[in-house]
Amino acid sequence: MIEAPIALTSTLNVGLVADGLVQYAVRESPEIGIHTSNVNVVVGECNDGFLNDIQGRHVRAEHVRTALESAAEGPVVEGAVGAGTGTTCFGWKGGIGTASRLVPRQAGGFVVGALVQSNFGNPRDLVICGVPVGRYVQPPAAGGKLEQDGGSIMIVLATDAPLGSRQLRRLCVRAAVGLARTGSHIGHDSGDFVIAFSVAHRISHAPEVLTREETVVADEARAMQWLFPAVAESVEEAVLNSLCRAETVTGRDRHVRNALPVEKVVSLVERARGGLG
Amino acid sequence: MIEAPIALTSTLNVGLVADGLVQYAVRESPEIGIHTSNVNVVVGECNDGFLNDIQGRHVRAEHVRTALESAAEGPVVEGAVGAGTGTTCFGWKGGIGTASRLVPRQAGGFVVGALVQSNFGNPRDLVICGVPVGRYVQPPAAGGKLEQDGGSIMIVLATDAPLGSRQLRRLCVRAAVGLARTGSHIGHDSGDFVIAFSVAHRISHAPEVLTREETVVADEARAMQWLFPAVAESVEEAVLNSLCRAETVTGRDRHVRNALPVEKVVSLVERARGGLG
Amino acid sequence: MIEAPIALTSTLNVGLVADGLVQYAVRESPEIGIHTSNVNVVVGECNDGFLNDIQGRHVRAEHVRTALESAAEGPVVEGAVGAGTGTTCFGWKGGIGTASRLVPRQAGGFVVGALVQSNFGNPRDLVICGVPVGRYVQPPAAGGKLEQDGGSIMIVLATDAPLGSRQLRRLCVRAAVGLARTGSHIGHDSGDFVIAFSVAHRISHAPEVLTREETVVADEARAMQWLFPAVAESVEEAVLNSLCRAETVTGRDRHVRNALPVEKVVSLVERARGGLG
Amino acid sequence: MIEAPIALTSTLNVGLVADGLVQYAVRESPEIGIHTSNVNVVVGECNDGFLNDIQGRHVRAEHVRTALESAAEGPVVEGAVGAGTGTTCFGWKGGIGTASRLVPRQAGGFVVGALVQSNFGNPRDLVICGVPVGRYVQPPAAGGKLEQDGGSIMIVLATDAPLGSRQLRRLCVRAAVGLARTGSHIGHDSGDFVIAFSVAHRISHAPEVLTREETVVADEARAMQWLFPAVAESVEEAVLNSLCRAETVTGRDRHVRNALPVEKVVSLVERARGGLG
Repeated sequence: MIEAPIALTSTLNVGLVADGLVQYAVRESPEIGIHTSNVNVVVGECNDGFLNDIQGRHVRAEHVRTALESAAEGPVVEGAVGAGTGTTCFGWKGGIGTASRLVPRQAGGFVVGALVQSNFGNPRDLVICGVPVGRYVQPPAAGGKLEQDGGSIMIVLATDAPLGSRQLRRLCVRAAVGLARTGSHIGHDSGDFVIAFSVAHRISHAPEVLTREETVVADEARAMQWLFPAVAESVEEAVLNSLCRAETVTGRDRHVRNALPVEKVVSLVERARGGLG
Repeated sequence: MIEAPIALTSTLNVGLVADGLVQYAVRESPEIGIHTSNVNVVVGECNDGFLNDIQGRHVRAEHVRTALESAAEGPVVEGAVGAGTGTTCFGWKGGIGTASRLVPRQAGGFVVGALVQSNFGNPRDLVICGVPVGRYVQPPAAGGKLEQDGGSIMIVLATDAPLGSRQLRRLCVRAAVGLARTGSHIGHDSGDFVIAFSVAHRISHAPEVLTREETVVADEARAMQWLFPAVAESVEEAVLNSLCRAETVTGRDRHVRNALPVEKVVSLVERARGGLG
Repeated sequence: MIEAPIALTSTLNVGLVADGLVQYAVRESPEIGIHTSNVNVVVGECNDGFLNDIQGRHVRAEHVRTALESAAEGPVVEGAVGAGTGTTCFGWKGGIGTASRLVPRQAGGFVVGALVQSNFGNPRDLVICGVPVGRYVQPPAAGGKLEQDGGSIMIVLATDAPLGSRQLRRLCVRAAVGLARTGSHIGHDSGDFVIAFSVAHRISHAPEVLTREETVVADEARAMQWLFPAVAESVEEAVLNSLCRAETVTGRDRHVRNALPVEKVVSLVERARGGLG
Repeated sequence: MIEAPIALTSTLNVGLVADGLVQYAVRESPEIGIHTSNVNVVVGECNDGFLNDIQGRHVRAEHVRTALESAAEGPVVEGAVGAGTGTTCFGWKGGIGTASRLVPRQAGGFVVGALVQSNFGNPRDLVICGVPVGRYVQPPAAGGKLEQDGGSIMIVLATDAPLGSRQLRRLCVRAAVGLARTGSHIGHDSGDFVIAFSVAHRISHAPEVLTREETVVADEARAMQWLFPAVAESVEEAVLNSLCRAETVTGRDRHVRNALPVEKVVSLVERARGGLG
């Protein structure tokens, strides 16, 4: 059960953002902890200390509330925004990225989507569409020296397929496939987390009946044949979107992370693909 | 998915018993591995090398087949039988034990049952109904010296509650509660395994539809409030039954495991309970 | 690696206490997030909403700092103190409890200790020294109705044995043995967590060498033969201490949790043991 | 602790091969189960039922013994040999593959190697060196129809780095990175297993001392910075070797798996790389 919105932030802000989510939940559901049980919140984080003054812990409850209240349907803003403002990916400016896939009608017509906060990767390792881009294009050494890899990534997967916890965990494992295809080695120090949820069923806090009929996936092979690659592709594309949408950011102590030179990279990938005729 | 009967045996027989299950499955379903996929079997084991000539690996495919074909409804034979023939529990003769509970109608009227192959425990640690029996009644040193604890137990849980894998795993955890109440410390060397399954749903190898409606537990709190203690009690009672039903066995090299002196133990427990008025 | 003190608190305070730990760590190590990496903190919680106005989230950073600065050697205060101020255990006032064991010199002379924040248990299930006390002594219905079980417990284990993460995890599993012996079924809703650490080795954030010689347990069987029961006993005793040391508390909305009537309980246990002669 | 050689075989042979390992162990160590404890064996498997008459279970104890006795230093035979005789990889003949990496002296000069039994992959998904080879080169439909993906892979990792179980598990996770780079989605039905071991320490069955000094990795970041990519590369290369070394095999019922047309594939990869200048 996920009882509250999932928030992403900078590492040392986790406590304040968790408390912001609690404040929001209590305002929305004033019975929490008085007539009903408590509320459990979920906060993910990456360490963006190269650009961000993380000791400052500048996120406040009102920022959490504003984020929740301004959530809307439609395109998701990507790049150096929100929890992605200070992150670094393969030595370039990373951030928030998102992508999704629709599986064919005969496999259920389900949607699966990924949202990532990208903060990982060794500059030389970046791979785009199978092309080892990082060997040809590397960021200028920023802030004096190029820091060692070892970052992390938060990956959130959402689907409308009626999956249970065992099946959602299987989706999480396949997120690593997409991650690996961007050049990640799931580095040491790296807290790479994946959380997946389904919106197919709403779970009541106070169920009126002991058992009920619920739609489940009966042909798991057929569903997963499509959902697994869909997850891998969504995560790979979401990471690339986080890179391609982020603009150059100058942070604390004049530390700089440059935007990925997208045109140069596209040209490289086209040349590699062009070789295939 | 469990695709074949669960078998229990002595440690070094696992390979032969697994092969016996495969032979049985292939005979029953001749399409296995030709027109359909393969079959996965489950074999549990305890090391009963004190009484048993385990190097001999005396179990054959025909013993497996006989066991499966003689399976029947009704009372389960307990004590020094089957995979329990050579096992030791708290220094006494252990073996097969079983017990079950029926939860109230308002909690679903479900049944949960446990079957154990008991092969663990330090003689001084035996506890029955909370009474530290092992401090008062201990087995004669058998075969020269009293061996160190460090055995193991196989626990199989079955229920007709419509539980999914996440919920069955929760039942498995509560099996440890019953085990602890008999005096086990889940000792080192001890491979204590629990496997739980539900008979509520049959899973088709070749589902015709992508999704289907399935009965699930909607009020997990209400169901588990009864199922968790039911599991703990069943496991505790199953271990005690394995002890109380086993007769003295003389095994290889004149090694002896004595039957628990049930009357003496009952008298002890009654005296302790009698003290409570 | 544990990088900061472990804090325990009430559920909805977790965010604020985590932030308090971060503030403390940053003050002690001003290089965090600037010249070195970040800091990871650990906060445990129980929901004490029956007695506590948990929406109020009354814990502040200065309370965290005071707690850390007043930490001292010697006896640990137990009962309705700290994170145990509002908790309930088997329907009685629970709280903080602690206990430890010293294993014999030939098994290393190691110490293992447990500290618990007890907040679980059905009144009828309380077991003390194997005696089913809860069937004879029950708390007055407090605050109108006797609430359903389903609480939780935080258990912290510490040892000076030179154990690695795999071995510490094994200790955690045996904490459940002690818990079960107090009458817990590890109830639904119950977030029963165990964290174990060893103080045998200090882990450097900036190691100067690639490899080093480290003392490890070579004879795991001999060490665990003593450490496992030591953990089980410590946890069982720590829970009982949390009950026996807690005084009656009146909380929000005049909700009351009564202290366990220790004399009555001792008399019951003595009578049961007396029956054994 | 790994107590016996690791064996790989066809799915329905697991029981017989496990028993073969037991026979071998008992012959080598006649005290097993009599004066000492038992022996635990490890057998991995893939379902090669398309080419192999798996119901026949044709592996005997003497084959196990021959395999163990003919194990030797030097190059490992790859392709359609041993447990790889009947397997299929990306629709082509797969089998046994192996590869290893030596990390630099300043990172310890450790070796890590992988051996795989490849039996997975959708023909269209094959990726070699980042080039989507499977979109350009596909196997002829064999045996009537091209079967659905859903196979599996066994991966064995070995290293001389002095890693503990926690660290070896971390290596296992990175094996998935190499697997993903070959085009695997870690498909449904797929039992993809990784087992890793270190040869740095021998573990005594009868340790004479309680504790000892052992070499451990003190600077895990530095070691893993090299070992993680080494694992990913070894697994990727081992899978490719299994494909490139396997020759066309005709199996039961005239089912055929063709060898990968290596020259064609090399030419494709060279053209893609050539595009990069």
